Amino acid sequence: MTSSQVRVGIVGATGYAGNELLRIFSSHRNAKVTYAASTQADTAYVSDTAPELVGYDSLRVESFDADECHSHCDFAFVALPSGASGNVSMALRQRGMRVIDLSGDFRLPAQLYESWYGKPALVHHPNDVEAVYGLTEWNQSAIQSAQLVANPGCYATAALLALLPIVEAKWHQADHPLVIDAKSGVSGSGRKPTRQSHFAELQENFYAYKVGGHQHTPEIQHCLGLSAPHSILLTTQLLPCTRGIFLTAYVPLNQVVTDEDVHQTFLKHYQTSPFLTIYPSGKLPQMKQVRGSNRCHIGFHVHETHRMLQVFSTIDNLQKGASGQAVQNFNVMHGFSETEGLLGLPLYP
Amino acid sequence: MTSSQVRVGIVGATGYAGNELLRIFSSHRNAKVTYAASTQADTAYVSDTAPELVGYDSLRVESFDADECHSHCDFAFVALPSGASGNVSMALRQRGMRVIDLSGDFRLPAQLYESWYGKPALVHHPNDVEAVYGLTEWNQSAIQSAQLVANPGCYATAALLALLPIVEAKWHQADHPLVIDAKSGVSGSGRKPTRQSHFAELQENFYAYKVGGHQHTPEIQHCLGLSAPHSILLTTQLLPCTRGIFLTAYVPLNQVVTDEDVHQTFLKHYQTSPFLTIYPSGKLPQMKQVRGSNRCHIGFHVHETHRMLQVFSTIDNLQKGASGQAVQNFNVMHGFSETEGLLGLPLYP
Amino acid sequence: MTSSQVRVGIVGATGYAGNELLRIFSSHRNAKVTYAASTQADTAYVSDTAPELVGYDSLRVESFDADECHSHCDFAFVALPSGASGNVSMALRQRGMRVIDLSGDFRLPAQLYESWYGKPALVHHPNDVEAVYGLTEWNQSAIQSAQLVANPGCYATAALLALLPIVEAKWHQADHPLVIDAKSGVSGSGRKPTRQSHFAELQENFYAYKVGGHQHTPEIQHCLGLSAPHSILLTTQLLPCTRGIFLTAYVPLNQVVTDEDVHQTFLKHYQTSPFLTIYPSGKLPQMKQVRGSNRCHIGFHVHETHRMLQVFSTIDNLQKGASGQAVQNFNVMHGFSETEGLLGLPLYP
Amino acid sequence: MTSSQVRVGIVGATGYAGNELLRIFSSHRNAKVTYAASTQADTAYVSDTAPELVGYDSLRVESFDADECHSHCDFAFVALPSGASGNVSMALRQRGMRVIDLSGDFRLPAQLYESWYGKPALVHHPNDVEAVYGLTEWNQSAIQSAQLVANPGCYATAALLALLPIVEAKWHQADHPLVIDAKSGVSGSGRKPTRQSHFAELQENFYAYKVGGHQHTPEIQHCLGLSAPHSILLTTQLLPCTRGIFLTAYVPLNQVVTDEDVHQTFLKHYQTSPFLTIYPSGKLPQMKQVRGSNRCHIGFHVHETHRMLQVFSTIDNLQKGASGQAVQNFNVMHGFSETEGLLGLPLYP
Repeated sequence: MTSSQVRVGIVGATGYAGNELLRIFSSHRNAKVTYAASTQADTAYVSDTAPELVGYDSLRVESFDADECHSHCDFAFVALPSGASGNVSMALRQRGMRVIDLSGDFRLPAQLYESWYGKPALVHHPNDVEAVYGLTEWNQSAIQSAQLVANPGCYATAALLALLPIVEAKWHQADHPLVIDAKSGVSGSGRKPTRQSHFAELQENFYAYKVGGHQHTPEIQHCLGLSAPHSILLTTQLLPCTRGIFLTAYVPLNQVVTDEDVHQTFLKHYQTSPFLTIYPSGKLPQMKQVRGSNRCHIGFHVHETHRMLQVFSTIDNLQKGASGQAVQNFNVMHGFSETEGLLGLPLYP
Repeated sequence: MTSSQVRVGIVGATGYAGNELLRIFSSHRNAKVTYAASTQADTAYVSDTAPELVGYDSLRVESFDADECHSHCDFAFVALPSGASGNVSMALRQRGMRVIDLSGDFRLPAQLYESWYGKPALVHHPNDVEAVYGLTEWNQSAIQSAQLVANPGCYATAALLALLPIVEAKWHQADHPLVIDAKSGVSGSGRKPTRQSHFAELQENFYAYKVGGHQHTPEIQHCLGLSAPHSILLTTQLLPCTRGIFLTAYVPLNQVVTDEDVHQTFLKHYQTSPFLTIYPSGKLPQMKQVRGSNRCHIGFHVHETHRMLQVFSTIDNLQKGASGQAVQNFNVMHGFSETEGLLGLPLYP
Repeated sequence: MTSSQVRVGIVGATGYAGNELLRIFSSHRNAKVTYAASTQADTAYVSDTAPELVGYDSLRVESFDADECHSHCDFAFVALPSGASGNVSMALRQRGMRVIDLSGDFRLPAQLYESWYGKPALVHHPNDVEAVYGLTEWNQSAIQSAQLVANPGCYATAALLALLPIVEAKWHQADHPLVIDAKSGVSGSGRKPTRQSHFAELQENFYAYKVGGHQHTPEIQHCLGLSAPHSILLTTQLLPCTRGIFLTAYVPLNQVVTDEDVHQTFLKHYQTSPFLTIYPSGKLPQMKQVRGSNRCHIGFHVHETHRMLQVFSTIDNLQKGASGQAVQNFNVMHGFSETEGLLGLPLYP
Repeated sequence: MTSSQVRVGIVGATGYAGNELLRIFSSHRNAKVTYAASTQADTAYVSDTAPELVGYDSLRVESFDADECHSHCDFAFVALPSGASGNVSMALRQRGMRVIDLSGDFRLPAQLYESWYGKPALVHHPNDVEAVYGLTEWNQSAIQSAQLVANPGCYATAALLALLPIVEAKWHQADHPLVIDAKSGVSGSGRKPTRQSHFAELQENFYAYKVGGHQHTPEIQHCLGLSAPHSILLTTQLLPCTRGIFLTAYVPLNQVVTDEDVHQTFLKHYQTSPFLTIYPSGKLPQMKQVRGSNRCHIGFHVHETHRMLQVFSTIDNLQKGASGQAVQNFNVMHGFSETEGLLGLPLYP
């Protein structure tokens, strides 16, 4: 560890998002993980339970303690289930630490949070500025100085990157919903074994879940700046895959737009973004082509006759949809290169 | 073989649809496969190349010859690629045989066929009545007396079973497209090895293909009786699965409909259909729950605020989407029990 | 239900083996499931939790009660975890019912059981004959009159069918172990969600477990009639699959044997067995070619130079490895055709 | 590109090994890929056909030309099918280039090559020293100065790393075969679509192939220094996976060895090897825990009663089994850090 490296703590280090943070930081030149904790009373070494995380032999997963964390780290990532996560983040904020929270606890205005998550919203630290929504490509300057970043949801990231340029261009019919047909691999719902995540149940299966009620719906709608309650219709579906989100959005158009219009609009926003690839009309993204990387690939098709714009976007839910974007935000918050630790190419095949 | 059994021929016996026909007929009490052919010059025994098809030890796969087929069979299934399939079916019709053609060659009016398939349409046998579209649940009386049945496409079957009751109820907004976001396992594109079907390319992958141009689009639109060119927007997508189609349809509503309205409308059409399960609101189908069977499971969700009805339907593409429905039609054409040979339950898990 | 149908009860009806029994009995002409129970206090209808089990709409899964079971059934299958299963089977035997127990509780002599399962062995019903080991192909006459059948373990079934003819021929070197390198799909370890069965952990994974300690080792050794403690070396390994066992056995030879010798030895034992396929030298079995069926396919290779006979066998662990063989035994016990309910061909692809 | 970077050419750039080389070199600080070729007349940009290989937008895949290659590169990797590969490597050697050949063409003495590959062996460049076998951990000093490296086969790498320490310790019974039961993901057999690699055929499947005849058998035997023809019995089997080799070796012992003996023997050889993990007795490797990395994880179990040592080893066949080890050799040949470009952790889950 060099003297200039940021000392990083990870709370929720044994879950998939926590493991992915450890994986990413193993090649990060400006930071080092000096503290790992879980809310379960694990005290094993990382290497005991996750032999693939080579190099963390001397890192122990502690039972979380806010003061311990504060004394060992300059910065913390909190990747616990919603509810638990926010409280840990608040405790660390109260000790003056900058925090990225990967849960849903700080993504929504209090009222929306309470109605969709069914829990009381956390009162932010009184001296705190509000949490900054960490969609890096769209919120970079606020993230730079943020003390608390609410890392976006996986579905929300894929949806917002695909739809923000279109909504900003005001091409969509306001009186009809933007339909988002989204598909996700199972790691998005975490490491806890459930009947849904059982291999024998999921392989060769596909189905929709939480129809009409997924908590990323208000996150997407709010961040798109759409207030009408019918604006977004999000359907979340489970793929027999480990990693990856693939999203098909159907945008009813209020005017004629050409392939070139759409392509240019995307390029205007993303041309210099290191993790985005925008395909021209006629070429479409594939989910596996971003796996294991922090990339988002976007394609589109204008259905002229139907006055409908179809947008496809794909990310790795544990990378750009969680830990990758979190490190991207961490880099922005510290003035490091935005891509530090995140340049590994997708694992294909 | 009992004297009353129908002697059946299968042309295209080494493909997935052909194999599935052999599998189904192995337990069919009113028929026996007496002829199997392929357009390649195979002359191996079925059991040599497909040891899983136990019991076909003495059945040889011949190089197709129409006279041979006619002399050995009372009835033929033709399951070849579009283009090739129709010609074989015509040759057998000319010899007086009743035929079920599983390709796309007879599903569309000539003009639509030529524009979507990019091939000249076949002129039907001059003395022939036109091919009957074999969507069993909706066309049973015409199928009974049909000489030539055009077995529906896999996507079309899942879409039509889900949408026909709704379109008939005239609940959809005519000026907006019915959006069909469809997903299929790879066996739907056949046994021929391609880069797309390579295990290493497909596992952990998901993507859309033929966007704006899938040939099942006009089949669905035509059979729904919708003439406006914007009526249907079909997106076909490849799942990292072997068998199964799962389809999510978004129907913009022109009036308020309740859960009960939708449920009753489906039940009205399908209550007595032996292969259909209609779920009440709140319960949704899963693709694996129909695998290996001729079943179609349908669920729905009314998004009141969005004035949108969402319908989910799932089938096994090689069964209800191809060979299962073909045998169902065969049963209807002969006055056998509609379910003969088709009562095996899904293979789960 | 016809008057002559056997009324069958299934205890453990919500697990994979129980579900598979329900699936098989749905097409069994001589029996009907009239009672289903689990040890958890489920009282849902089968169709509520397992919509793929079409036709069981009025069958309720009860909390197990021995008297209830006895009053509703003529015969019982008990498919619970070892320990629990044996006690239920004993309770039903005490009420005079014939029982097939699918657990490991009655497969071993008491002493072996206690040392490998780490539990006290059950004292059999005093008036009872001992449990009969239900390897149908090798124990048919004892099974016919059995009151209690211990259904073989999945690994043991695949191993014994492959090795019994060879050991009987006395071709193996007695002073060297028979090495059995076995691989299984995850459904073999049941429906309970665990970290091992989590899709994200198992997909693209493969590893050995319980090395040196799998409880099917003494079952195989005992049934092969080999008493030396080094006779069998069984390695069990987990495949990223749902169904299937594939087993490679290495038999050190004490004499020269030819391909023809081996082939004839297998044929001598299995030629008339309806569920066995023996491949000639040069052709090898594939696991998927038996999936969903009660079949066992066996191939072999004589390594002359190495004086080693290699035998390959494959079964579906939920069929021939559990519920399929149980129904086969049930048929034998009742004098029904051995194949009743079991003639469905493998699901391929 | 910095002035000190080695200019690298890749022949066979569109196959899986070639793609993996491109992926690895994208983060290699001492080299840059300046030439890519295939034997097919592709002239597309890498990014057109492999959008996951971000950053290669201006690299074109040429039709191979030895002079072109020589003029653009300092060093070449040749990753073509056996037969084709060796000729290309020879042509480049004749132009004075140092080459790593990833095929089987230079791994065996001429006589063994001809008998196992069924092709005439290549006569090495007259002025050439013989090809050096590139098992990095065991041949490092010869590799340093090599002009032509024969990169080891994937099965051979996993087998040799597991068995060399044991054979060197002379613990194995010389008169009995070392049995190697090996399993591989499908990417090991390349990108060319075949019936075997079709998703629908491979998923839920498992089987042995080339039994008694796999060309890695003599490679393993030769490198272990075992001359008796019965020394090695290698069985290769196909896993329904994309990446990974998992190998179970059974070593008959000629003496009593303890867990500690074995552990120490492995540590003696591998303690300082950056890519090897040796597990103590009681802990076993899992295939997915090395996926996407250049690592090899080894575990073992001493079966005392059976006088048998069981060794488990696992690698990613495209990394340590092909391109990863090739870059490791490249690093050694240039005096770079052995781990340059290869420190990315496994992708888990």
